[in-house]
Amino acid sequence: MTSPHPIADHSRLSINTATTRAQWTLKEAIDGYAKAGVKGISPWRDQIAAMGLANAAKAIRAADLTVTGVCRGGMFPWADAAGRAAMLDDNRRAIEEAATLNAQCLVLVVGGLPAGSKDLAGAHAMVEEAIATLLPEARAAGVSMAIEPLHPMYAADRACVNTLGHALDICERMGEGIGVAVDVYHVWWDTELKQQIDRAGKDKLLAFHVCDWLVPTRDMLMDRGMMGDGVIDIPLIRGWVEAAGYDGFHEVEIFSELDWWKREAGEVIETCKERCLTVV
Amino acid sequence: MTSPHPIADHSRLSINTATTRAQWTLKEAIDGYAKAGVKGISPWRDQIAAMGLANAAKAIRAADLTVTGVCRGGMFPWADAAGRAAMLDDNRRAIEEAATLNAQCLVLVVGGLPAGSKDLAGAHAMVEEAIATLLPEARAAGVSMAIEPLHPMYAADRACVNTLGHALDICERMGEGIGVAVDVYHVWWDTELKQQIDRAGKDKLLAFHVCDWLVPTRDMLMDRGMMGDGVIDIPLIRGWVEAAGYDGFHEVEIFSELDWWKREAGEVIETCKERCLTVV
Repeated sequence: MTSPHPIADHSRLSINTATTRAQWTLKEAIDGYAKAGVKGISPWRDQIAAMGLANAAKAIRAADLTVTGVCRGGMFPWADAAGRAAMLDDNRRAIEEAATLNAQCLVLVVGGLPAGSKDLAGAHAMVEEAIATLLPEARAAGVSMAIEPLHPMYAADRACVNTLGHALDICERMGEGIGVAVDVYHVWWDTELKQQIDRAGKDKLLAFHVCDWLVPTRDMLMDRGMMGDGVIDIPLIRGWVEAAGYDGFHEVEIFSELDWWKREAGEVIETCKERCLTVV
Repeated sequence: MTSPHPIADHSRLSINTATTRAQWTLKEAIDGYAKAGVKGISPWRDQIAAMGLANAAKAIRAADLTVTGVCRGGMFPWADAAGRAAMLDDNRRAIEEAATLNAQCLVLVVGGLPAGSKDLAGAHAMVEEAIATLLPEARAAGVSMAIEPLHPMYAADRACVNTLGHALDICERMGEGIGVAVDVYHVWWDTELKQQIDRAGKDKLLAFHVCDWLVPTRDMLMDRGMMGDGVIDIPLIRGWVEAAGYDGFHEVEIFSELDWWKREAGEVIETCKERCLTVV
């Protein structure tokens, strides 16, 4: 397998606001990314709420940034009827926000086991029931849903869909309007990755996220690496998604309480830009 | 899916010496497990080396304990020719130790990426080349090899075989004398688990390990839970391996620097015994 051609410029670079969440508000991120020549942004909903949806939409439009995703819908499995109703309400607001921001997709982190439950198959069924309920509403709003399979170490508490294969099985049962977000951090270890990317194809590949897997990883949530600092062969995986037809943005999403969240945000952005030309 | 019948007694209870490694030497574990009515033991090689292989074999025989596994062979991928030679030598010693202890299997933790490498497919190929080299020697020594797929969070640094499906693919290419060790901690999240256990069948199911996945998991290596304290539906998975024909031991293996290694070893063993009758 040869690597794909290097990335020539930053015309398809997006930054997920989680990457600078410790340093910058959403307003600061919009301004800072645009000033640095970054072309896309993927905001988190708590930051959208803090800024106000209308204000966020206006500022992003003014900065001419493409919204490559809204993070996040999901957290579907419920413990009781009230929990189910609250979950659906929250996801309906997420759909509305994604529509208002003209986002390329609403990222779904599907949720883990309900509190006290060991019923993994039951959680899987709840995920599908919730998606089946919400998908017609997302379609009507013009919002594409993107299931993001999370690393299996999050199966219990964040997402019980842990492989691209499982995510695509769900997409096939759901029909139009839903696809996948491929984050190298979550899927790099999977022996079926290339095959499942091929299976997804251009229609289902809605987002491509990059960061790196550090050795050692000191924290299961807050120690993701900058591209090039870990063990993931990112160009190999980028080659696979491009061969499958993906021609969208490369979205950098780094949760790093232990390192990058402690640095000056401008340095983080410049490092993302440089690494995207050299190691992605 | 109904749970299988409860476990009636401790006649198939084995304890992996990792469970009490902070408290007990191998000699103390042999004596302590036998005195507690535990019928099996799975020793680690550093503890065998500290006690001396002949002494360990003699003491285990005298205590009438079944050796349900020797931990561990593997760590196959190499960085250079000297590393490859050292790896093969070490695995040959592991085979000899497993033979001397009359172990039911030599557990293989296959290893991750060589230092500095991002070539996951290359690491997979090295794993198969090493197993193909060593398997005839294991067969000649009467030792069954058991590939233990490890959780994907260990793919980079401990084992690049992370699903039962991948392990069984390798077994099929290798032929007789090799099977799998199923540890609920590593595989509980896998949507294909039941199907792959069925595929393995009695012939390839060489060991069944139990512990639990805690929420939150505070450390990626040293925070495994006691059975019943986490989210794994252990009886469900035990039902699957038994339906596939497995009638061997239930081996408790708990790495827990954060909790169980701090407790008195006798309490740990009694808790293992009680939980095996109630939640396994």
